[in-house]
Amino acid sequence: MDVRRRRFWGWGYEDDGPTREQQERLGATLTKRFGIEGLAIVSPPSVDELDLPAPRVKPPDALQAICSVDPTDRAGHTYGKSFRDIVRALRRDFRTPPDIVAFPRDEVDVVALLDWCAVERIAAIPYGGGSSVVGGVEAAVGDGYTGAVSIDLGRLGAVLDVDRAARAARIQGGVYGPALEDQLRPHGLTLRHYPQSFELSTLGGWIATRSGGHYATLYTHVDEFVESLRVVTPRGVVETRRLPGSGAGPSPDRWFIGSEGTLGIITEAWMRLQDRPTFRAAATARFTHFDDGVAAARALAQSGLYPANCRLLDATEAMLTGADDGAAHVLLIAFESADHPLDAWITRAVECARDHGGVVDDDAVTTRSDEQGERAGAAGAWRSAFVRAPYTRDALVGLGLVNETFETATTWGAFGELHASVVAATTDAMRSVGAWPGIVTCRFTHVYPDGPAPYFTVMAPGRAGAQLEQWAAIKEAASDALLAHGATITHHHAVGRDHRRWYDRQRPELFADALRAAKHSLDPHGILNPGVLVDPA
Amino acid sequence: MDVRRRRFWGWGYEDDGPTREQQERLGATLTKRFGIEGLAIVSPPSVDELDLPAPRVKPPDALQAICSVDPTDRAGHTYGKSFRDIVRALRRDFRTPPDIVAFPRDEVDVVALLDWCAVERIAAIPYGGGSSVVGGVEAAVGDGYTGAVSIDLGRLGAVLDVDRAARAARIQGGVYGPALEDQLRPHGLTLRHYPQSFELSTLGGWIATRSGGHYATLYTHVDEFVESLRVVTPRGVVETRRLPGSGAGPSPDRWFIGSEGTLGIITEAWMRLQDRPTFRAAATARFTHFDDGVAAARALAQSGLYPANCRLLDATEAMLTGADDGAAHVLLIAFESADHPLDAWITRAVECARDHGGVVDDDAVTTRSDEQGERAGAAGAWRSAFVRAPYTRDALVGLGLVNETFETATTWGAFGELHASVVAATTDAMRSVGAWPGIVTCRFTHVYPDGPAPYFTVMAPGRAGAQLEQWAAIKEAASDALLAHGATITHHHAVGRDHRRWYDRQRPELFADALRAAKHSLDPHGILNPGVLVDPA
Repeated sequence: MDVRRRRFWGWGYEDDGPTREQQERLGATLTKRFGIEGLAIVSPPSVDELDLPAPRVKPPDALQAICSVDPTDRAGHTYGKSFRDIVRALRRDFRTPPDIVAFPRDEVDVVALLDWCAVERIAAIPYGGGSSVVGGVEAAVGDGYTGAVSIDLGRLGAVLDVDRAARAARIQGGVYGPALEDQLRPHGLTLRHYPQSFELSTLGGWIATRSGGHYATLYTHVDEFVESLRVVTPRGVVETRRLPGSGAGPSPDRWFIGSEGTLGIITEAWMRLQDRPTFRAAATARFTHFDDGVAAARALAQSGLYPANCRLLDATEAMLTGADDGAAHVLLIAFESADHPLDAWITRAVECARDHGGVVDDDAVTTRSDEQGERAGAAGAWRSAFVRAPYTRDALVGLGLVNETFETATTWGAFGELHASVVAATTDAMRSVGAWPGIVTCRFTHVYPDGPAPYFTVMAPGRAGAQLEQWAAIKEAASDALLAHGATITHHHAVGRDHRRWYDRQRPELFADALRAAKHSLDPHGILNPGVLVDPA
Repeated sequence: MDVRRRRFWGWGYEDDGPTREQQERLGATLTKRFGIEGLAIVSPPSVDELDLPAPRVKPPDALQAICSVDPTDRAGHTYGKSFRDIVRALRRDFRTPPDIVAFPRDEVDVVALLDWCAVERIAAIPYGGGSSVVGGVEAAVGDGYTGAVSIDLGRLGAVLDVDRAARAARIQGGVYGPALEDQLRPHGLTLRHYPQSFELSTLGGWIATRSGGHYATLYTHVDEFVESLRVVTPRGVVETRRLPGSGAGPSPDRWFIGSEGTLGIITEAWMRLQDRPTFRAAATARFTHFDDGVAAARALAQSGLYPANCRLLDATEAMLTGADDGAAHVLLIAFESADHPLDAWITRAVECARDHGGVVDDDAVTTRSDEQGERAGAAGAWRSAFVRAPYTRDALVGLGLVNETFETATTWGAFGELHASVVAATTDAMRSVGAWPGIVTCRFTHVYPDGPAPYFTVMAPGRAGAQLEQWAAIKEAASDALLAHGATITHHHAVGRDHRRWYDRQRPELFADALRAAKHSLDPHGILNPGVLVDPA
């Protein structure tokens, strides 16, 4: 278990993140560079300040040992880590905490917890690392339930078996990213799935939400790494067969991947792993015109070269993350391999970028065979900013800013209009709610042969006390634009509660019926994560 | 529509396949080489010889124009193309033909047909190219239905839209392989999905059965090429969104892919396409020990090189298909690209093969940038035998042989024992049922980082009139061995009716419940393809 204490109100560890002094300097920089005035720091809450409602349910004796009503546990499991969550936490608004936080030690405990919840009609909220940015772990389940239990899988953190020949491992669902990689390292293996939340999110959470990792192509979602699953449903355990591939009916794994805790709790998975990469090659291309960068990214996505990184950053995004000076749009290209030198790969990729107007300095092309290759240059700067971003975001929210992200995927031909429309809608919304001067930046997190996954970041000054309404208006404008252009409401942030309005319009109605029927079959009392993804029948 | 006439009793066109004289020579060769005696040719049936039961149902007037009771149509839609099917056809056993064969002209016709079937409780059997080898298109639905209609999608054969930027096309489900490629060629695009049945199978059939194509890695099943689907269910049309990737809940496409006509009829799909390859590289490695070939295939599968071909043939398989002389096990390696020369790829792949004891003659390594590259050498010989195999198989069955295939997938570590066990069980069964001297060969059709997809071929002399029982015993022994070793009952032949006994043991029981619930939601009267995959609730 962690010895470092997690923040109950926001991202990360209490001993990490910007100090108050650094936060003040951040405010001064925003004032100077963007003309944002009147920034004042809101102090983080302490648990003593909170007035949590009393627990409405009491666990049976047999479950007492794994159930907590400690206010820090309950407050810490009240929200995920979205902008909305941080704002509410900074306002000391913890009106819907879970009644109980349960820490099962093993699968038997998970089964017992679901049995109890089914009998007492208590909502069971699976909780991995709590990094949801879509309201995926909230306990605001309404009066249809006698209470809500947050089931924290953090104690199921072990790698149980390693199959070196197949490069696969059987892993418990509650393992955090760093602990997973620590346990795989002695075997020379790695999952190499690095969502931004890597440090504080879990394997089960990644699978339940179809998490996106750092691979820009091929293995974009964790889905591809899942060899088999073990899932506890209210009706019992489902275990799928370890198969490299199969054509025996619809894939059972694919029914559970992305089910966001509404069908069951993922207690174990056999995951496909990789050898630790020893060869790396990288290049940075700069573009005067964003469209040219898009065309280069498309060429790379369709080349069959399968770069591990193919991240297009617009000029503002590049500047804010330190990857460039803001004068150009930047395409970060990288390959990695445990098997072969990558000279032919990077050479052709640089040709692609140059063919589409990209400027690639020769000294911005590197090939290495050491572990440090990925830390260098523009890509290294970007990567460092990437993993620190959640801490910085909380500091900005603490300064009163509206600062949030949203992401999607669409086809290449549709991207141009989508981008223009989303930027226009978001900008109009920021102006109309007085969140101005604001910026909206775009990058590609992943690219596919048929289209990119664009990721947008919004940053604007908030009006004290009105930030939630301001963000709601901006989010609505952006989401409506996404839906209107045929894009998805989420490429890898999941649906949760916050995306339901748009997801319900996106998914075919008859499919929703089938999904509800399947849920009713596995969760007949409708106790699993109500409000998320799909309502019980 | 075809002007060439299809055989109603077996594979292919009436004007193609071995002549009677060639069939006689084939028999003589078998006698000489394998000591198989007593081979006598069974003449193919004519429709006049058949005594088809009268149709039990009559289509309403509005559907008369697209419904046929012609004996050739009914006989031609009675079976798929498995060994069992050919044997029964040669025995003139057509006791369970569909009552009606319907040829919808468009989606409206499909909707009307399902409406009629639901009202009259008629089983609706979706029929693509009829190439099922697992009983997937049979009309033997039992007394719970008033009749059975085979719904032949062959008139839905058009490419409707092409999106060049996304390299995707909207395609009707009934298009046959060659017609699909013909329509894509003017756009410089190709699906490049070549199952053995390519000539006489359809896109909708491939998607419904999770068909395996010629790509040995990455795009092993047609699943990966599906961007979105349009499916007619008895409750209405489901259309999914065109998305390169999404994390919005479980993928609706993945619920329908592999559903084998039990959830709906696939009328359209947006498919991910590719540029036509212009660069090719190939090599042939020969191995004294099969295990070394397996190790080389594993190294390639885990290398990140992603070969288009990585087919390991055991020595007998290599001899029978003309790829080699039977003295060695053969690994066929190939790469293809529309973007870049493949020298670095093939060079490293050959190193991998040699590292594991493979002998690769320098002149067996080729790199080309023309369309003929794939036709050359051992790979070319193998490919040619591959596409002709169904014709040859029917000729062998007509000589009285027991000749069939089965396939699976398993993890690398489990393969050795699985292979030994399957060969032993199959051999024992052949001996015990008097199908002897018989052979069982093995090849890898596809390879994954975590394991291979082995494909077995059985050839043995049959006892006149007893071939079905002989094969049933062999199949049972082989399938039980697959299941006992944790492998899948099918990697890409689908479940159909023939694999149900083993599929029902393989898939988790609670998943089957969820699948039945989803089916009941979409097909409340249980009219769609009863007997296949999963029973109505």
